[in-house]
Amino acid sequence: MLALAAFPLGYKVRIFEPNNPCPAGLVTPFHNCANYDTEAALVEFAKSCDVVTFEFENIPLGAAALIEKHTPLFPSSKGLELTQDRLVEKEFVQSLGLEVAPFMSVENIEDLKAAIAKIGPKGILKTTTLGYDGKGQVLINGPDEAESAWREIGATPAIFEGLVEFEFETSAIIARGQDGQVLHFPNSQNFHVGGILRKSVVPAPLSESQIKAAQNIAETIANALNYVGVLAVELFVTKSGLVVNEIAPRVHNSGHWTIEGCKTSQFTAHVHAICGLPLGDSGLNAANVEMENLLGDEILDAHELLTEPKTYVHIYGKDGIKAGRKMGHITRLGRKAL
Amino acid sequence: MLALAAFPLGYKVRIFEPNNPCPAGLVTPFHNCANYDTEAALVEFAKSCDVVTFEFENIPLGAAALIEKHTPLFPSSKGLELTQDRLVEKEFVQSLGLEVAPFMSVENIEDLKAAIAKIGPKGILKTTTLGYDGKGQVLINGPDEAESAWREIGATPAIFEGLVEFEFETSAIIARGQDGQVLHFPNSQNFHVGGILRKSVVPAPLSESQIKAAQNIAETIANALNYVGVLAVELFVTKSGLVVNEIAPRVHNSGHWTIEGCKTSQFTAHVHAICGLPLGDSGLNAANVEMENLLGDEILDAHELLTEPKTYVHIYGKDGIKAGRKMGHITRLGRKAL
Repeated sequence: MLALAAFPLGYKVRIFEPNNPCPAGLVTPFHNCANYDTEAALVEFAKSCDVVTFEFENIPLGAAALIEKHTPLFPSSKGLELTQDRLVEKEFVQSLGLEVAPFMSVENIEDLKAAIAKIGPKGILKTTTLGYDGKGQVLINGPDEAESAWREIGATPAIFEGLVEFEFETSAIIARGQDGQVLHFPNSQNFHVGGILRKSVVPAPLSESQIKAAQNIAETIANALNYVGVLAVELFVTKSGLVVNEIAPRVHNSGHWTIEGCKTSQFTAHVHAICGLPLGDSGLNAANVEMENLLGDEILDAHELLTEPKTYVHIYGKDGIKAGRKMGHITRLGRKAL
Repeated sequence: MLALAAFPLGYKVRIFEPNNPCPAGLVTPFHNCANYDTEAALVEFAKSCDVVTFEFENIPLGAAALIEKHTPLFPSSKGLELTQDRLVEKEFVQSLGLEVAPFMSVENIEDLKAAIAKIGPKGILKTTTLGYDGKGQVLINGPDEAESAWREIGATPAIFEGLVEFEFETSAIIARGQDGQVLHFPNSQNFHVGGILRKSVVPAPLSESQIKAAQNIAETIANALNYVGVLAVELFVTKSGLVVNEIAPRVHNSGHWTIEGCKTSQFTAHVHAICGLPLGDSGLNAANVEMENLLGDEILDAHELLTEPKTYVHIYGKDGIKAGRKMGHITRLGRKAL
């Protein structure tokens, strides 16, 4: 989707991707296919690009740092480093004076028991690294589940996070330019099933002051990182205010609706930002917009959705259908235009 | 632009294109690069595609016919055959009971003089084949210009067309599905400079009955050809009715504004049609839309236009800037949404 946003602006897109075939490989002839630890391939890739970006945050830090030595990388590896470790991320967010769920670092089973005693009894054990879409997470309902949870995540460094009572989750998506200009996208209300984003609905039922607070949080984080590109902050909406759940240093699934829903999509805004162009206009194209992920074999009937009014189908071209795997999404624009 | 419309639907795009590099080659890794008379390459290409289409009408008919033997070609070579020869096209349109400019076939200088005597004195001498963007055309102001005009077009089979007094030119763009369903796009008012489309503005200042008449013309032509895909008909709006200027068996420059201006663009509708999907919705996203071509070195400052509100920039990635060459376009949506 980033490549498709770059093409109309006249840019050529080169991808570095260990897997072949891969979805991005279907839309560009320029493909460096190598592992993330193949230094020569990384350097060759970096040198052949005017600017480099990434679309998922589990790229090895060493690879990002090496690329950064040879060509501008936006966002920089700083944001990547931060969000690759939940503990570092939480401490960073806290250091900015922003609210996060109560948490404790867990290095061993004793730490976990102590954390449950202090924060619990209910909470989520999360590996500090490599988690996404509910992976590397186990819900703990009480102290007697500590041992099995610890085993389940692989007895690896983790955090225990107290459950936050929230009304719903919202995303604050922001684009920040090389000159520090920012563009806020309308907030979505996110619906998850089994740890996976199912649906994002816009606008979220937030008050003016909540929207302002969400924008301030995203802007505070983006400024602190001197961030360039699109950044997403997942926020819990609670009775006592907004609580930062997670930061994603990239375009975000809960912003896919912006392709048709906004004048400038998150993908186009990201391309604008990393290329030093004016960020654009995040105004809505309809009074309400809904994005629903197509998971697993739901993709098989996707074309049939084209008969529905103002419905847009996106199929990612991923190889291999697996239950729960994000294979595409649909966006519905509300009937009433703004 | 066709490829960019196909990708979100999950399709892989393969191009057959003699030139390398070429714009479409920048957005797909699947490229058969060979001349149109290389039969083996054409067959290999056809066999590797589920459906084939084309985006310009000067493809040699033999190449189209060969592809058609091996895989479905939409639109079929019938529309191609028709529009590759102005004389055949005019006679076909006339045979459907539709209005065309007065014309006569010109095989030699005597024919031309006779045509000027009968239709003229003012008119346009047009080669029957290979004309586009004002190429292969010479304006004749009177009998004394016959000889030089005949030399200028290369003394090749042509038609002499009487000048039609028209208020403006409009396009009737229609998508027709494999099942005969049709989708009409809003009519544009087209502005030309030096024979090249400069600007298309939507909606065109047409009455309800003129719109109906334009749609009927497009539908009559599409049905007569059992056409599948997007077809554009350029029409002169005259005091006595609509006169068919030209048929283009493809997505059309005067419909580029549909990318942002319509719920379903001409490109997406074309992909839908050739793939047997529901055609979509050609409803407008704004009360008015304007498309302006970026010619020659106008492309160099294109990114600066991104600061203008509701302005979308398209850069085609063509190699080599030439005066008057279509290098990209911009689309502006009106401030008032529908």
